[in-house]
Amino acid sequence: MRWLADVHVALRSGIADPEGQTIAGGLRALGHLTVDEVRAGKLLRIRFEAADAAAAEAAVSDMVRRLLANPVMEEAWWEVRSDVAAPVPERIG
Amino acid sequence: MRWLADVHVALRSGIADPEGQTIAGGLRALGHLTVDEVRAGKLLRIRFEAADAAAAEAAVSDMVRRLLANPVMEEAWWEVRSDVAAPVPERIG
Repeated sequence: MRWLADVHVALRSGIADPEGQTIAGGLRALGHLTVDEVRAGKLLRIRFEAADAAAAEAAVSDMVRRLLANPVMEEAWWEVRSDVAAPVPERIG
Repeated sequence: MRWLADVHVALRSGIADPEGQTIAGGLRALGHLTVDEVRAGKLLRIRFEAADAAAAEAAVSDMVRRLLANPVMEEAWWEVRSDVAAPVPERIG
């Protein structure tokens, strides 16, 4: 059975985020003066196969711990769903 | 009123994604042999102020169009919510 995992990886609070600070400065320069913080992270969308939902969940947990996130500096959270086309809330272009 | 926007930016399908391919290779090398695709994108978490939900939504739409995503190569989608602590599905560490 095919699964789709959306893994989000973000820097822990307290870890300096120069990319986020740069984006925040850019948004303020464009007139969005109330932006006070931007935190930049990663979104990884993974397609894989697993026998059932429990096996899929266990596989993603193992992927995150062993490769996708550094637990000292980053935190990660994820959603796993069966791989069917799903609408997304909003989209540009 | 304070708002928190989670903006996701991903490469459009058909655009080569070397970072995602490298991660997919790493996962397979770790034994996750059924991984057939990884797409790498960005997650930007933005804290800002706006008068109401409609103004917050309009502000994020403007930020995405003018700075956060390149509509030729990327697609973006987002959720805006009032800035209160919210639980996330799963988390390591």
